Amino acid sequence: MSFLQISEKAGIARVALSRGKVNAVNETVVDELAECFRKLEEDRNIRAVILTGTGKFFTFGFDIPEFLGYAKNDFIRYLTKFTDFYTYLFTYPKPVIAALNGHTIAGGCMMAIACDYRIMVPGKAKISLNEIEFGSSLFAGSVELMKLWLGQRNAEAAMLGGTMFSVEEAHRLGLIDRIVPPEELEGEAEKTAARFAEKDAAAFRSIKKLLRKPLADDMKKRERDSILEFVDIWYSEATWRRLQEKVIHG
Amino acid sequence: MSFLQISEKAGIARVALSRGKVNAVNETVVDELAECFRKLEEDRNIRAVILTGTGKFFTFGFDIPEFLGYAKNDFIRYLTKFTDFYTYLFTYPKPVIAALNGHTIAGGCMMAIACDYRIMVPGKAKISLNEIEFGSSLFAGSVELMKLWLGQRNAEAAMLGGTMFSVEEAHRLGLIDRIVPPEELEGEAEKTAARFAEKDAAAFRSIKKLLRKPLADDMKKRERDSILEFVDIWYSEATWRRLQEKVIHG
Amino acid sequence: MSFLQISEKAGIARVALSRGKVNAVNETVVDELAECFRKLEEDRNIRAVILTGTGKFFTFGFDIPEFLGYAKNDFIRYLTKFTDFYTYLFTYPKPVIAALNGHTIAGGCMMAIACDYRIMVPGKAKISLNEIEFGSSLFAGSVELMKLWLGQRNAEAAMLGGTMFSVEEAHRLGLIDRIVPPEELEGEAEKTAARFAEKDAAAFRSIKKLLRKPLADDMKKRERDSILEFVDIWYSEATWRRLQEKVIHG
Repeated sequence: MSFLQISEKAGIARVALSRGKVNAVNETVVDELAECFRKLEEDRNIRAVILTGTGKFFTFGFDIPEFLGYAKNDFIRYLTKFTDFYTYLFTYPKPVIAALNGHTIAGGCMMAIACDYRIMVPGKAKISLNEIEFGSSLFAGSVELMKLWLGQRNAEAAMLGGTMFSVEEAHRLGLIDRIVPPEELEGEAEKTAARFAEKDAAAFRSIKKLLRKPLADDMKKRERDSILEFVDIWYSEATWRRLQEKVIHG
Repeated sequence: MSFLQISEKAGIARVALSRGKVNAVNETVVDELAECFRKLEEDRNIRAVILTGTGKFFTFGFDIPEFLGYAKNDFIRYLTKFTDFYTYLFTYPKPVIAALNGHTIAGGCMMAIACDYRIMVPGKAKISLNEIEFGSSLFAGSVELMKLWLGQRNAEAAMLGGTMFSVEEAHRLGLIDRIVPPEELEGEAEKTAARFAEKDAAAFRSIKKLLRKPLADDMKKRERDSILEFVDIWYSEATWRRLQEKVIHG
Repeated sequence: MSFLQISEKAGIARVALSRGKVNAVNETVVDELAECFRKLEEDRNIRAVILTGTGKFFTFGFDIPEFLGYAKNDFIRYLTKFTDFYTYLFTYPKPVIAALNGHTIAGGCMMAIACDYRIMVPGKAKISLNEIEFGSSLFAGSVELMKLWLGQRNAEAAMLGGTMFSVEEAHRLGLIDRIVPPEELEGEAEKTAARFAEKDAAAFRSIKKLLRKPLADDMKKRERDSILEFVDIWYSEATWRRLQEKVIHG
């Protein structure tokens, strides 16, 4: 794996995004995540997974400079893979703990909210689906997941307002389950994963499916259309110009 | 327009119900609202809409004395137009701010909860779907919208209990987003509308659709049956008698 | 009725589970409950129903020792009756108040959360769907009802974590509507039932249907598959062993 650091301790796998300073997500990252999680699903020794990042970011989201070089159809293929991955993560048969070591933005937030439990470090790190700020839409599934944790009202305020949540605010609203200092993040994630993993695996898988599969099925039905509309807006003149400015000015 | 006052300032349209003392909603009011919002949707200069009322009421709801003179089929036609209108409002492609200048009752509440943001004046004004108090049912869509903002538990208590919410209670429960004194209502509504309108219009439209269209589609499927049941109960002996008493005694 | 105590006062029926020390639910209990509620539905003198238990327990749930003697197909038949009953209860056309006189566990909790209002005594009594603790799954409908009152996040924590809620915690989270001392439980349940029952019966029935039937219909579609998966896990080696230990050691 080029962009993932994978380790294992006492039946708990740890998957860390590791790509440059901001762990920007590109197609290779998504391919590697999907492959890695498939393998961990099949691995009978693995009882739970921790998804985290290296450095100061969980991930800042999509690698926009790279995607500005993508043709429409290639971008649609990538987005299909990406949304398939977060939907797979949402109904993953084993516990998945998100250990959010820093900024959790856009595509990063979408992956985080598909996990079973979110632990985040305090301080300046933000969590958001603020795509509207640069004139981009979202995907049907990502909107549903935000609604699931925030409720309709706060989800609307967040996504129509482009809110960058502080960790504390995200915790107060239920988007983050727990805040721990950076030096305790790994230990706390392991403890939480172990707590989930001590349950009977078949019962856990079955109850999690009852809790989440109906929504995942509904997300899948609507995801394709939302990707096509997302792409139309992404390549529109106004949004394309903002994306280029974003790349130049950061 | 006979019963609407329409104005515009800096790309923000203001639509004010203006019909007698309580802004009672009849078929002409609904026809005018539907036509007015269609025109504002097409008007490229309009970036957001404020829906408000004149005088001390947003609206007290349906004009019951007038509807007591309606034959069943005419009432069904009216109710279809009315529920179509609030569903259209709920998925309106531009931001709609409800500036609730006073009592927001029954049909008035149904329109208010279809908007994107609700600002209300403090004091004695109530907001409620209290139809059960005079033995009337509700419409599928209006029930879904109450559930959306209040959650199942508070929505059940409100609609099965006929609760008349004070502004403060409605705010605490999430039915009202903000309380401002009457003299600041117009200015606050304009500021809020401008804040929504500064986002990219295509991204706003797309994200709002993702947030709301699945529920609106579901509402539409069930609205017709709920109207027919509503009408059966409305014209039942017990409810009809209560409606007539309500008209006589206020 | 062998295991139900049924009485009536001023149009309010009181149905009390009465089977041994813990009011364990078996097939006869479910058959009797279904028959009793059908009769009360048809009885024009009955305006509301209180569901409660005798002794220190509302009910501890299924009679596991008895069901360990059931063949798979018989157990499926029982579970179908049981889930049909709580779904029927959830959309019961008259008000149903749960007067929870003590522990409300597993199947007991499933019936309680299908009622319109839950009053519980303070103290040591717990309320929970903690099936995961002995490696059992749940039913689609019961999961939906927990999500309805707790929201997705707290429902997941409860059912994947096997949480035994104290009355106070359940009240704080919205699973319990009111806490009253044991000596006031009956009176408070009667007052609450009377308050619900004073509304127009046709309007109550219609609005309750709008509030709950769409979810009940969805529950029904998915219940059968969930029962089959529940049974597969129930009869699995690991869970079967735990059930037997539970019976021996309590």
